[in-house]
Amino acid sequence: MKRFKRGVKTHPAFSRGVKKEIRIIGWDDSRHSHTDKSVVLVGPIFRGAEYMDGMLSVSIKKDGLDSTQKIASAIRKSRHYGQLSVIMTDGITFGGFNLVDIKALHIKTGLPVIAVQRYEPNMKEFLGAIRKVFKKDWRKRVAIVKKTGKVKRWEKDGRAVFYQSAGLTDAEVSEILDLTILRGNTPEPLRVAHLIAGGLSGESRGGA
Amino acid sequence: MKRFKRGVKTHPAFSRGVKKEIRIIGWDDSRHSHTDKSVVLVGPIFRGAEYMDGMLSVSIKKDGLDSTQKIASAIRKSRHYGQLSVIMTDGITFGGFNLVDIKALHIKTGLPVIAVQRYEPNMKEFLGAIRKVFKKDWRKRVAIVKKTGKVKRWEKDGRAVFYQSAGLTDAEVSEILDLTILRGNTPEPLRVAHLIAGGLSGESRGGA
Repeated sequence: MKRFKRGVKTHPAFSRGVKKEIRIIGWDDSRHSHTDKSVVLVGPIFRGAEYMDGMLSVSIKKDGLDSTQKIASAIRKSRHYGQLSVIMTDGITFGGFNLVDIKALHIKTGLPVIAVQRYEPNMKEFLGAIRKVFKKDWRKRVAIVKKTGKVKRWEKDGRAVFYQSAGLTDAEVSEILDLTILRGNTPEPLRVAHLIAGGLSGESRGGA
Repeated sequence: MKRFKRGVKTHPAFSRGVKKEIRIIGWDDSRHSHTDKSVVLVGPIFRGAEYMDGMLSVSIKKDGLDSTQKIASAIRKSRHYGQLSVIMTDGITFGGFNLVDIKALHIKTGLPVIAVQRYEPNMKEFLGAIRKVFKKDWRKRVAIVKKTGKVKRWEKDGRAVFYQSAGLTDAEVSEILDLTILRGNTPEPLRVAHLIAGGLSGESRGGA
């Protein structure tokens, strides 16, 4: 299997196919307002689809470009690193336009990455927005988006998601999505990441 | 059943005994340092023992006395309020000595409350510490602890927890603990609250 490029070794936990108990970390961002300078990302760690085993969090700059490095560093420092088999992200942008470079994240961690979206992204519009908003470093950002690769479609029983991946064959992605999408069209680690991120930033926070 | 006192009605979701799918919110606090002035409490909402359905969070004053009001208010304002059947708390102190008045929480929300601890608290030592630390308002704090009621023991298959409760018979508490303690001696909503709180404040936070 030619999963890992540039000399990154296959993660041992993943060398024998997709097991039911594989550890998956799913990242999502908390809501943020126009005035916020940083955004919290949460990454609950799941054993298979149903059992939460841990959580990491990082703080990234809104509209910055530090999400890839922050996520990679948190994962590598975690005591769960040795057990982790897959990184999932909710799309490829966090905290505004803080782009996750999934190829770099794969190389930095040695773990495969799947960026999952519920709706098909309009890449032309997305790249156009980046060019408009970031007068200075739009080239760098567009390059990250372009190297992220083609958006693919997974479907089962009428439920569909769109994904980009690094370090996995489409068949492997499909197996992982089959295992983790239990209800609706969100893999459990991302569903719970979304609940936690929402609960941290929601109406309830700080309610007096 | 004389579960609810002072005219608080039995919560409809709980009127026919403990169902497998009852909604339970479990609260725990994030770690804090000596210099922190506030502490975040997280409350993941579970459907039964295994399915996380939502999350609330509040910010309380370290060593303050606002946790009861903050938790009650967050729950009452939540869109999950109508479905919630039980509140669990990790003991009765959050953020230093910010005491949860479980009787008052029960009355403010109309929901039964179970404060769960893995170790038997030494009440004498605990009250002694409160008297020492809070020269001004120790009477108020001691009164909250005393009205919280007797610490009871639950045990099953060699696993034991200690609890105080409001609005429930011991048989009902036992049923709820049977349902939610799947591994070790922590009910799932509190186990996951602890993972989330730890993940927010752990070594991984903000790692660069």
